[in-house]
Amino acid sequence: MTTIDDLPVRADLRGRSPYGAPQLDVAVRLNTNENSYPVPDAVVDAIGKAVQAELRDLNRYPDRDAVALRTDLADYLGHGLTAANVWAANGSNEVQQQLLQAFAGPGRSALGFGPSYSMHPLLAAGTGTRWIGALRDADFGLTPFSAVEQITRHAPDLVFLCSPNNPTGTALDPAVVDAVLRAAPGMVVVDEAYAEFARAGTTSALSALPRHPRLVVTRTMSKAFGFAGGRLGYLAADPAVVDAVQLVRLPYHLSALTQAAARAALAQREALLSTVDAIKEQRDRIVDTLRSRGVRVAESDANFVLFEVGGDQHVAWQRLLDRGVLVRDVGLAGWLRVTAGTESETDAFLGALL
Amino acid sequence: MTTIDDLPVRADLRGRSPYGAPQLDVAVRLNTNENSYPVPDAVVDAIGKAVQAELRDLNRYPDRDAVALRTDLADYLGHGLTAANVWAANGSNEVQQQLLQAFAGPGRSALGFGPSYSMHPLLAAGTGTRWIGALRDADFGLTPFSAVEQITRHAPDLVFLCSPNNPTGTALDPAVVDAVLRAAPGMVVVDEAYAEFARAGTTSALSALPRHPRLVVTRTMSKAFGFAGGRLGYLAADPAVVDAVQLVRLPYHLSALTQAAARAALAQREALLSTVDAIKEQRDRIVDTLRSRGVRVAESDANFVLFEVGGDQHVAWQRLLDRGVLVRDVGLAGWLRVTAGTESETDAFLGALL
Repeated sequence: MTTIDDLPVRADLRGRSPYGAPQLDVAVRLNTNENSYPVPDAVVDAIGKAVQAELRDLNRYPDRDAVALRTDLADYLGHGLTAANVWAANGSNEVQQQLLQAFAGPGRSALGFGPSYSMHPLLAAGTGTRWIGALRDADFGLTPFSAVEQITRHAPDLVFLCSPNNPTGTALDPAVVDAVLRAAPGMVVVDEAYAEFARAGTTSALSALPRHPRLVVTRTMSKAFGFAGGRLGYLAADPAVVDAVQLVRLPYHLSALTQAAARAALAQREALLSTVDAIKEQRDRIVDTLRSRGVRVAESDANFVLFEVGGDQHVAWQRLLDRGVLVRDVGLAGWLRVTAGTESETDAFLGALL
Repeated sequence: MTTIDDLPVRADLRGRSPYGAPQLDVAVRLNTNENSYPVPDAVVDAIGKAVQAELRDLNRYPDRDAVALRTDLADYLGHGLTAANVWAANGSNEVQQQLLQAFAGPGRSALGFGPSYSMHPLLAAGTGTRWIGALRDADFGLTPFSAVEQITRHAPDLVFLCSPNNPTGTALDPAVVDAVLRAAPGMVVVDEAYAEFARAGTTSALSALPRHPRLVVTRTMSKAFGFAGGRLGYLAADPAVVDAVQLVRLPYHLSALTQAAARAALAQREALLSTVDAIKEQRDRIVDTLRSRGVRVAESDANFVLFEVGGDQHVAWQRLLDRGVLVRDVGLAGWLRVTAGTESETDAFLGALL
């Protein structure tokens, strides 16, 4: 039998495993920060109708520039943005891959502050970009001083910030984004996948866009919109950034079904985003309950909580799984990440942890 | 205003334009080799039902490995293939990009025989792969001798063959594929996007798979299946190749909607592929009519015909457009490419050409 090692695969891929959390059939799945609420009936009907209207003409390629969808996304974001400021792809991973292809890639470097979203270094590897693993502080925070010092030392072509940060959960102080924008010689990408869950008073990097043509904010419909299965990520930036990613995007990368379904979901955003408050409530309940038990947790502006297990996190992960609750081992010694879902899921998690 | 040139975009992208044919609103669109037949009502209903069944659970990520879809694709291809032999993505462009990321990329090279599908060198550029532009013969054919000589000279890490070749239309002799497989030091990718339109007696490279673990055959549902708007490309190869592309694929790259819609289309393949014979008839009619007018054409196994215009092809392209017929200027001096569609579209094209 032929194996990968018998093939002329790239040397830097040998011995690797595909990225991804185990997709296990467990009663309580709190491991991939999905939105636990199924799509409401009225929204199912609206998306169904929108998709149905596309089917007869599926023999034709979709709108390559997805202008209508980008217009709707800009309208959702506000901040005076238009379709010219917005680009969309099959998940924010693809958006970030395109940004690396346009602004980083072979002979260039990207820097991120770990622990952070583990796909960032993998996207760098997949695009031939040298990865620079900078560090957050020991309490998972990031100060302007530390960020600027590390950026100045490495002069990366592209910086990833993640706010709220995955897997730790805390949003960045806008002063960090400002300082990074001043210090970074290249592009600054702020991954705001969880922005809709941020605590009151949190500032989005969107508000800094008018002053910074090298700033890119990426978002996703997978989390707050409960649209993970629909695969729609997007970015907001100066129109010149959108021009640049169009040089590397695959033509017709967004299917007619994806464009139609995402537009329908955006039109139904009131219904879809109505779950956000309930999820934030469960998130705060997890934080408060764990703290009342003396467990260390990171401040969370997301739909998940990073908590300390006091010992080997893989043992703790397995014990929770044995009790029917799937959480995420993000490879951070002594810590696990749990998604905030429904009230009964929180009950199950808090019960299983005892 | 900020422009691309003000941004730290990669030097090799400066001055480029995004790939893609003009998406013009013209009565007769014969420029992107779409299937001119809309999706039949019964198939619309079947796809609609399949998609509808996914909508309530769109809050969950899709099956990352798309196993059910890959099983159905393997069943369609036959040749004793199973899901382990098949991989799928958002169009065969994404499949080929993943192959380049796994087997080519920075410090490696890919070779293709031009004139051929113009995305192959662009995908190479986008993945940091050095492109080697080998050549077909002056009559657009490719002999084993010429192919082997050029491969031996350049020793590329990955070879693209295209059969039937786009934009010239002719399928490769299996002897060429065999000779290339013997001579090539690395992977050999045969792009069979138009395979279903081949003339009787044409051999697919699928039949060589059992003997060649370095062979990959890519296909698409965009053409014969009339599923261009659904975006589904796939490959068949040794299971080790599928393992390798999983190291570079983006997680959850295929939406739940894409997987469901493609499976429904595959289940309805009798209805969808029933247009293939009618399209081949129009293709042969275009070839025969142009030859009877003394126009040179390339032999076609695809749903398009490459024909000589006798002069500047862009002038000829514009004249056809002015008469309401959009064809493709593929940048081949003196030649244009026209898609074979419905009988009335052929009438319009043949009339406008006079």
